[in-house]
Amino acid sequence: MVNAMSDLPEVLQRPLSPNVELLLDARIPARLAWVAPNGNPRVVPIWFHWTGQHLALATFSGAQKLKEIAADSVVAVTIDSQSFPYRGLKIRGTVDVVANEGLAPEYRMAAERYLGPTVAERWCASLAHLDQSTILITPTWAGADMSGAAFLQEEAPG
Amino acid sequence: MVNAMSDLPEVLQRPLSPNVELLLDARIPARLAWVAPNGNPRVVPIWFHWTGQHLALATFSGAQKLKEIAADSVVAVTIDSQSFPYRGLKIRGTVDVVANEGLAPEYRMAAERYLGPTVAERWCASLAHLDQSTILITPTWAGADMSGAAFLQEEAPG
Repeated sequence: MVNAMSDLPEVLQRPLSPNVELLLDARIPARLAWVAPNGNPRVVPIWFHWTGQHLALATFSGAQKLKEIAADSVVAVTIDSQSFPYRGLKIRGTVDVVANEGLAPEYRMAAERYLGPTVAERWCASLAHLDQSTILITPTWAGADMSGAAFLQEEAPG
Repeated sequence: MVNAMSDLPEVLQRPLSPNVELLLDARIPARLAWVAPNGNPRVVPIWFHWTGQHLALATFSGAQKLKEIAADSVVAVTIDSQSFPYRGLKIRGTVDVVANEGLAPEYRMAAERYLGPTVAERWCASLAHLDQSTILITPTWAGADMSGAAFLQEEAPG
């Protein structure tokens, strides 16, 4: 699928495959990896919000990862199902950091997806006094691996 | 807790906390991060087996990550629950790579935990013609974050 309007990697261009769509809509945290200033790798679980063009990860101002992930950093993310058969989406990209006053709008959207609207509202209210920054990832590469399902393939009901 | 017999980070010394024990026994894949030769971060989901001293991750000979993760590499791992309230264990360490003829013994143990004994046997049989290498991580740092549960704390039944 070629989309002249988008520089997105093919796996992330619309229409998304059902497997990719399901992963981006699931309540699975992204696992975000970066390289610390000492050259060693780091990885953390973090909520994400897919905007259709960017992966937005909000974090609290002052977080260690914000000190280590600056604008133009290169990061890697995996979004993958926890149980067999595994389905996985990997994204690599470059970072812009956007500072917010209070919680990031993408954080509120993520909270609604991960927690449902009622608990998300209470969760965000409990954090509303804090400032966040958004790590906005522009994907430069993406790969999907949905091959695990083949092992469980059975004949469709006739 | 000080254990003069072990150089393990405190979080991984026996007796383990129930939260750490649960994560190491769960069917949650580790997410393994490393730094590629070009200096960029990488992250993949991968089965793990905790030996009590090392985190053993088996992978197939020829895998790209094996070309990029050599002996003495520094890697980072997160093992964390997928649903709220989140519980997470992070481990950083150095790598030894052990080549096996056929499947790695740690892979068979991991398969049994992740798939249960019956499916694991069939799964491993389907792969028995392949050689694996074990990425053996010696933890140099570990941290646990089990703080999410506080939000859901309710009074114990009286």
